[in-house]
Amino acid sequence: MKLSKQQLQEFDELGFLFLPNQFTSDETALLRKASKEVYALEREEVWRESNGGPRTAFAAHTYNEAFRRLGAHPRLIEPVMQILDGPVYIHQYKVNAKAAFDGEVWQWHQDYGTWQRDDDMPEARAMNIAVFIDEVSAANGPLIFIPKSHKKGVQEAGHDLESTSYPLWTLDRATVSRLANEGGIVAPTGSAGCVLLFHGNLVHASPPNISPWGRTIVYLSLCHVDNHIRRFKRAEWIAHRDFTPIQPLADDCLTASKT
Amino acid sequence: MKLSKQQLQEFDELGFLFLPNQFTSDETALLRKASKEVYALEREEVWRESNGGPRTAFAAHTYNEAFRRLGAHPRLIEPVMQILDGPVYIHQYKVNAKAAFDGEVWQWHQDYGTWQRDDDMPEARAMNIAVFIDEVSAANGPLIFIPKSHKKGVQEAGHDLESTSYPLWTLDRATVSRLANEGGIVAPTGSAGCVLLFHGNLVHASPPNISPWGRTIVYLSLCHVDNHIRRFKRAEWIAHRDFTPIQPLADDCLTASKT
Repeated sequence: MKLSKQQLQEFDELGFLFLPNQFTSDETALLRKASKEVYALEREEVWRESNGGPRTAFAAHTYNEAFRRLGAHPRLIEPVMQILDGPVYIHQYKVNAKAAFDGEVWQWHQDYGTWQRDDDMPEARAMNIAVFIDEVSAANGPLIFIPKSHKKGVQEAGHDLESTSYPLWTLDRATVSRLANEGGIVAPTGSAGCVLLFHGNLVHASPPNISPWGRTIVYLSLCHVDNHIRRFKRAEWIAHRDFTPIQPLADDCLTASKT
Repeated sequence: MKLSKQQLQEFDELGFLFLPNQFTSDETALLRKASKEVYALEREEVWRESNGGPRTAFAAHTYNEAFRRLGAHPRLIEPVMQILDGPVYIHQYKVNAKAAFDGEVWQWHQDYGTWQRDDDMPEARAMNIAVFIDEVSAANGPLIFIPKSHKKGVQEAGHDLESTSYPLWTLDRATVSRLANEGGIVAPTGSAGCVLLFHGNLVHASPPNISPWGRTIVYLSLCHVDNHIRRFKRAEWIAHRDFTPIQPLADDCLTASKT
């Protein structure tokens, strides 16, 4: 799994890259089953919406075998190693549910804004790679991006402790308007198995899901090992402290009996 | 403006029809200006979100010249006369704002459900035709439809007086799930000037708008004159009582100096 020169240029210019159909229906079925398993667990890593439905399972790679394998999948790790130009470790791992009818908003934010402010990560040499476990459509709360916003550095942000169950450094409306008027807004949508890479400084959000179908996305936030965090304020299962470089597994690791 | 046999079949089968680029950018600019004018009015017909931003201007064709002309536009009236097979009158006229950042949800519902229950409209010989005044995208709260749901008749509904500022007969989750599992969900999106026709019984909803851009849609709810409402419970500017058949104006009526 190697990104082409053109794909690397697109990522650099826009701040994200959409790769359709990277995982087979067998693989996404396996991950869908795994997500149901982790949401059923009563663990501190599994966060719920205000009505009790699942919102996020943090660090699922540390307590679920399928997600452990996905966390070292070559179709995810190798492109990111290519973009970040070296070995990477898992800074954060989330299985985000966006439950049917009740999945709540994620307000406008930059992930690196949080990693810098809360975790003292030196530079934005870190990024997200997401796997759609279900179809993501205009109807079920897709990710929405402001292209090119990653070129503007870390924006001023306020610590939003009220909108949802998860504390987030969010951007004010004037900033979002200004960036969107420059870069536009896009909502990459597609079937289960699609993959989305985006820069740690890309401004993004996600509307509520009012559809009758859940839509789960797995997010790996990967960081160059030299750029590891310096402050251990957040729980280790939210901002990991194991900086060991990931060794990618084999391409069939999800469906193989052993890895 | 005549719908083809294929378009009529598609409407009958799916319950909606999407017509891209029916109005020019000059025409939509004129309508955008008109929508700002009506939202600035302090009138009982102009409803606001809980934070004070505009939500809906009812009956705008009765107090704004551009919307008066749009309410008799041949590109809107003639296709609906074709589908409903005869002369039509305006049952309801709405300019719906879905304001930037604050535009709230419209819960799952059927419009004819309300027209039957509240207004005693005899049959579902009535429908909506909508004009996009701004671009409608996955990011700014598009309409979402359950195709083929119009074939199932009026569904059980509860009177929702709490979710938003507007009372609505909404469907329960089990019904929405069942219909969506049969028909799927679609979100027709496109630029300003697109037109969307949908059956009075088509189940639809619209998520909040978290984008920095408003998106205004004008809705004409047109009813066959023989099928006029029998009960006058709601205000006459919400459920009109003038059943005079609309005489379509000329095709250039929006930009002409006089009509």
